[in-house]
Amino acid sequence: MKLATLKAEHKDGILVVVSRDLRRAVKATSIAPNLLAALECWTQCEPALAALYADLNAGEAVGAFDFDPGLAAAPLPRAPQWCDGSAFLNHGNLMQQAFGTPPIPDMETIPLMYQGASDDMLGPTDDVVLPSEAHGIDFEGEFGVIVDDVPLGCPAELALRHVKLLVQINDVSLRAFGPREMKAGFGFFQAKPSSSFAAVAVTPDEIGEAWREGRIHLDLAVELNGEWFGNPNGAEMNFGFHQLIAHAAATRRLSAGTILGSGTVSNAGDQRGSACIAERRAIEVIEKGASSTSFMKFGDRIRMEARWQDRRVFGEINQRIVQAFPPAMVG
Amino acid sequence: MKLATLKAEHKDGILVVVSRDLRRAVKATSIAPNLLAALECWTQCEPALAALYADLNAGEAVGAFDFDPGLAAAPLPRAPQWCDGSAFLNHGNLMQQAFGTPPIPDMETIPLMYQGASDDMLGPTDDVVLPSEAHGIDFEGEFGVIVDDVPLGCPAELALRHVKLLVQINDVSLRAFGPREMKAGFGFFQAKPSSSFAAVAVTPDEIGEAWREGRIHLDLAVELNGEWFGNPNGAEMNFGFHQLIAHAAATRRLSAGTILGSGTVSNAGDQRGSACIAERRAIEVIEKGASSTSFMKFGDRIRMEARWQDRRVFGEINQRIVQAFPPAMVG
Repeated sequence: MKLATLKAEHKDGILVVVSRDLRRAVKATSIAPNLLAALECWTQCEPALAALYADLNAGEAVGAFDFDPGLAAAPLPRAPQWCDGSAFLNHGNLMQQAFGTPPIPDMETIPLMYQGASDDMLGPTDDVVLPSEAHGIDFEGEFGVIVDDVPLGCPAELALRHVKLLVQINDVSLRAFGPREMKAGFGFFQAKPSSSFAAVAVTPDEIGEAWREGRIHLDLAVELNGEWFGNPNGAEMNFGFHQLIAHAAATRRLSAGTILGSGTVSNAGDQRGSACIAERRAIEVIEKGASSTSFMKFGDRIRMEARWQDRRVFGEINQRIVQAFPPAMVG
Repeated sequence: MKLATLKAEHKDGILVVVSRDLRRAVKATSIAPNLLAALECWTQCEPALAALYADLNAGEAVGAFDFDPGLAAAPLPRAPQWCDGSAFLNHGNLMQQAFGTPPIPDMETIPLMYQGASDDMLGPTDDVVLPSEAHGIDFEGEFGVIVDDVPLGCPAELALRHVKLLVQINDVSLRAFGPREMKAGFGFFQAKPSSSFAAVAVTPDEIGEAWREGRIHLDLAVELNGEWFGNPNGAEMNFGFHQLIAHAAATRRLSAGTILGSGTVSNAGDQRGSACIAERRAIEVIEKGASSTSFMKFGDRIRMEARWQDRRVFGEINQRIVQAFPPAMVG
């Protein structure tokens, strides 16, 4: 099943079911007004949504219309919470090797995870509005999962039953803030403006065997200004999503609609490229002694997509970086 | 004006106006269904809420009833986001002095702030359910503000106009996780389970001159198991809330309903006690070479309140620490 959220006056948007080929959609508001509401009573809503999805794919859904990703918000425009892991250790290892950042204790046994803002998630074609190119504007291509209510202390062995939807994410990052915020120990804050999402959230069965071991075994194809940047595969996650969920729920319950991210998809070896500029810059430092790829400029465009059986799964993230109005004009 | 949220089937609860003396309340759902909705259209809702508040205080509100804080949720049971500062530098200085934690760069010029979870805020008398006493269970008495929509890049000089409500917070903390999470640089996660809130959020005029310079100039009286623990005053914040808002909005807009916290209220000198156990332990280490106060045990009770003109402003936080069911039973 594929679900999306159309922008509407209300911030939570309008729930639609999207056809498998992403061409058609139909409002599902008779089942639940928005995706968050559906996740909060998933057991009741899921069969009705699945029936509507079957009708839509069969060309029999009443009121169906062409799906326009340009009208889509993030699946959860405001999510209850956003817990972003850094589960591909290859990424952290490269950063440490290149920039001499201090090794992170226990990183091979305890997942790294930061709490991100979830009040203002961007849609797949929304401009990324930022104040300054000097902040080191970067993208991070990620996969993620959306869970229903997870009880406190949920063990990893039981965690995958809570995964209701899979998503594709651009975790926009401002690299100029990262080192200081890490050193201060309070974690990323100014370094992490709003994240962006591909339009379509899918149930795990939509990618068949590519969903296994709590990992999304798909290539994430990343293109910067029309040029290939990388296509790392989600299979190499050092911690599966079940482990990320258990980590997040170790000391508190998680509300339905909580999104957990994989961190930048990153593969060892030199064939796959990268899903963020910082990592390519790290590789350049390691290989050539200096980085030559610059961070993003206003006007730059980032595209990301993942395919299964040669079909886009989540749609496409396709965003432009845009300068914010100067502060004096928005006060 | 004083507002609170009664628990209801819907997680956002029901908006009520509470009388100045906290004795009476009246539903405000004809104005806005819940506090988040009111904050999202504050300009429209505020006059109607103020009129209802005047009626309630005059004993003329139709449908008024006795206000029972035991039925109250947090003012925003799920807030769009929770940005918690550490704006009393005395607290950080004591921790560094006692435990030799590395000095935080620029801490006197750049506010410390972490992103907390905001999906599951606890009400004033809710049990704090936690998995283990070994995690170093602690409270942190804080003041906070709730803002309306804040534009990206809002300067500190314009930030106070966005403060709509003041709140009182217990930022529950698990000290066993803090040092590792700070060292890893990704910030607090398992160290910060759900925060708790006093029942009543108040407009700044409710504390008269005690709201000035972006600070809440009130004592926060903290009592552990019926014994005085501290009564530090909010005046000594090294950064005012206007500076915390500007810091949070430097690289992204903040949605209406965003809560910003002061961090543990902490005063220099030895007369005022502390608003968290970790700080008292730090003082014990500094003064006596070892800490003697232990962290909380299951069954312990924490109370916090703040008074203006001898009247409770926000009501009272009055919570018990309770052991969670073992994980195997909740999977």
